[in-house]
Amino acid sequence: MKRRDFLSSGMVAGIAAGAVPSAFAMENSKSEISREKLRLGFIGVGGRGRGLLRNALRLSGVQIYSICDIAEENLQNAQNLVKEAGQPVPKGYGKDKDSYKEMLEKEDLDGVVIGAPWKWQVPMAIAAMKAGVYAAHEVGPASSVDECWELVKTYEETGIPGMMLENYCYHKENMMVLNMIRQGLFGELIHCKCGYGHELRERLVLGKGTGPNPMSDSTKPVKGEGDYRSVHNQFRNGDLYPTHGVGPIAQFLDIQRGNRFLYLTSTATKARGLSKWSEENLPADHPRRNIRWRQGDIVTTTISCYNGESIIMTFDTRLPRPRTDMYLVQGTNGIWENDQKSVYIEGRSPKKNKWEPLKNYVQEFEHPLWRNYLSSGESSKSGHGGTDYLELRAFAESIRQGTNTPIDVYDTAAWRSIGPLSEASIAMGSHPVEFPDFTNGKWMTNKRIFGLTEKY
Amino acid sequence: MKRRDFLSSGMVAGIAAGAVPSAFAMENSKSEISREKLRLGFIGVGGRGRGLLRNALRLSGVQIYSICDIAEENLQNAQNLVKEAGQPVPKGYGKDKDSYKEMLEKEDLDGVVIGAPWKWQVPMAIAAMKAGVYAAHEVGPASSVDECWELVKTYEETGIPGMMLENYCYHKENMMVLNMIRQGLFGELIHCKCGYGHELRERLVLGKGTGPNPMSDSTKPVKGEGDYRSVHNQFRNGDLYPTHGVGPIAQFLDIQRGNRFLYLTSTATKARGLSKWSEENLPADHPRRNIRWRQGDIVTTTISCYNGESIIMTFDTRLPRPRTDMYLVQGTNGIWENDQKSVYIEGRSPKKNKWEPLKNYVQEFEHPLWRNYLSSGESSKSGHGGTDYLELRAFAESIRQGTNTPIDVYDTAAWRSIGPLSEASIAMGSHPVEFPDFTNGKWMTNKRIFGLTEKY
Repeated sequence: MKRRDFLSSGMVAGIAAGAVPSAFAMENSKSEISREKLRLGFIGVGGRGRGLLRNALRLSGVQIYSICDIAEENLQNAQNLVKEAGQPVPKGYGKDKDSYKEMLEKEDLDGVVIGAPWKWQVPMAIAAMKAGVYAAHEVGPASSVDECWELVKTYEETGIPGMMLENYCYHKENMMVLNMIRQGLFGELIHCKCGYGHELRERLVLGKGTGPNPMSDSTKPVKGEGDYRSVHNQFRNGDLYPTHGVGPIAQFLDIQRGNRFLYLTSTATKARGLSKWSEENLPADHPRRNIRWRQGDIVTTTISCYNGESIIMTFDTRLPRPRTDMYLVQGTNGIWENDQKSVYIEGRSPKKNKWEPLKNYVQEFEHPLWRNYLSSGESSKSGHGGTDYLELRAFAESIRQGTNTPIDVYDTAAWRSIGPLSEASIAMGSHPVEFPDFTNGKWMTNKRIFGLTEKY
Repeated sequence: MKRRDFLSSGMVAGIAAGAVPSAFAMENSKSEISREKLRLGFIGVGGRGRGLLRNALRLSGVQIYSICDIAEENLQNAQNLVKEAGQPVPKGYGKDKDSYKEMLEKEDLDGVVIGAPWKWQVPMAIAAMKAGVYAAHEVGPASSVDECWELVKTYEETGIPGMMLENYCYHKENMMVLNMIRQGLFGELIHCKCGYGHELRERLVLGKGTGPNPMSDSTKPVKGEGDYRSVHNQFRNGDLYPTHGVGPIAQFLDIQRGNRFLYLTSTATKARGLSKWSEENLPADHPRRNIRWRQGDIVTTTISCYNGESIIMTFDTRLPRPRTDMYLVQGTNGIWENDQKSVYIEGRSPKKNKWEPLKNYVQEFEHPLWRNYLSSGESSKSGHGGTDYLELRAFAESIRQGTNTPIDVYDTAAWRSIGPLSEASIAMGSHPVEFPDFTNGKWMTNKRIFGLTEKY
């Protein structure tokens, strides 16, 4: 029985009116997913989707049941991965860009993992939730604020949770700092920084040739035409990759749970990096040499929070630079700085106002989830430092237990909305732009949902 | 003959109408300061002022001619320093807060060095310029935008230059980076960061007892009542110490000389640091324990420049933290980060997108002024890493040659105005606030004035 049919049968009548719909659904639907293995579908199995698939194949009690990708090569590669892992070959979809809807309709899935390009992630998640299927999706900026509202409303109407696969939230250091914050080492938090500093000029201009053609929704991949991020860099100007940075910070600050983003200002520099790279690296007649990139090279966004903290975000992928996440957390009692892997805790660090290595805190403050994971034997096999495995395990456990996910639609809406909100601020000369309250007031009483246990 | 009298004698008629009044004055006044030794006065010789005095005493061809301080102890200490250096004891002033005007009126000075608290620096400089005396003053925020205009107009009316003693502009690394920028290593500049990260809680709450009473203009210093910055932290909320950070950055970006600050947004966090420190360190009945500090703990300011660059500034003195200047410069061809003393230059650094130590560039790119200074024998004796000596030498040389100073009133106005402009933005919920063009259009054609030679 599909969860959608179960819901529509009236057994969870009144769910849309409930303050915590998913918890309500959970109580009533637990028995429903007691089959031997969870059935997961995948939509979008390019490079990133297949990375997630490899991790999902190591989850116990999970079957990869069907896969959709409009690129036949991607689909076959993914099906082969499943076969090689000893599971039955999953049914394939992908004859056109609406095939994912067909898959959601026809297959009896418990959850779907969406590794598709930015602009498809939220619409596909919404479609999955409407089909009664838990939706996990990759990270990116929202296309619009409305899209974020749609995601939230679909959750509240269907009771089907969504989860953003923000793997940076599961980083070992980030979870340890979360643990230190919750144990009070930093005192009252005041100020945070984060960002995405990752030089991507060649990929933004030329792509790697494995994704769909960025200039069209309908055609197959073409080498040498950029990847899907190219179009966004050509036509948009904002923080287009906010969630790696702001996700962990939002959890540090209890955003949507006693705190919220109030407003932001955003400032873009001129755009030079991609054009300069193209001039220096492409022949004069190359079709992608003279694109007029709208996206400023560096976008800086300042978020003001209800509880009086500020968050400074930097989006920086179009200039040469060493990689960085730019994390900084500063409270009344201490400060952490990730680039130098350093921390200072007043009254505990050995020298007044001098950094000490963060690793001095591992023994005492390693997050229980990571402590558990590192002793499991699984940790040596997972990609992305284990974070992909951990986030997918959390997703699968949420389905199995019928609960909300630990990075839910309210988190997703707030974090992804930074994309269009920063564009609005930049378009108006850095004018402050307010955040919608996607919880419609529930942030005042909502409780923490992330990093609460050693399990997920 | 005092410069003021010289000017009013009509020998430089038309000076106010000239595009470059100081250059005009220079030509006509050279002979006027050919006496054996330059005569410098000092106003404000607390801790900082005496530090400057010690450096000035090592300048060749300079006599410390008179000193003003309302604290008798400061005045006597300063006079003793001059005497110990083998110069005649300078005449002392300081019976009340207007004594500096009396000194400027009565003494035949060539220049005056102002080490007084923030709010006196610009008014005293204006008074000096009106008295025909070159004015060098310490750093701080403007009290108002109008004060900045007044400084500029006084210069344009009198032809007497002023100089802000922004010693961070003379830092060895900053001047080397300036040299690297001008030689094109970073490509076209895109983005800069800077800040003042310096934990000052005890000094802001209690002071060191050597400055004037912060709560009054007229009384003598009282121990245990904060220093002069306390009042600003109690009543203002903005970036109150912008120039150490933004000075070198403005020179990197040619601000006021082909470029200018267009507008800023500024965001303050809640204020917790000073109150928490007071609660934990002062007895319950201490008169300074329950001050309601208005100044947010962290103020972040984003400046947009005419040429499309952004500058991110942080003002951070009220929370525990290791010291930092937060400098970062990013261009189309490279990036410098001061906290890690690291640089990456594309096509030159050995590993793609990996930091290398900045010191790898010293041999080739040390600024000529520093190369010259390090070989002079003076460098082992100067305070603040030599920067105080270098800035005072530049000031004295400007007087001697009758030229504009290398950090002039237009620089001073733009840099110090960040104080009140950031307050305005914060007061309006981070609304963008435009910078006045203190040059009235001259920025379009003005030429560089700083770091041009090995001499000053």
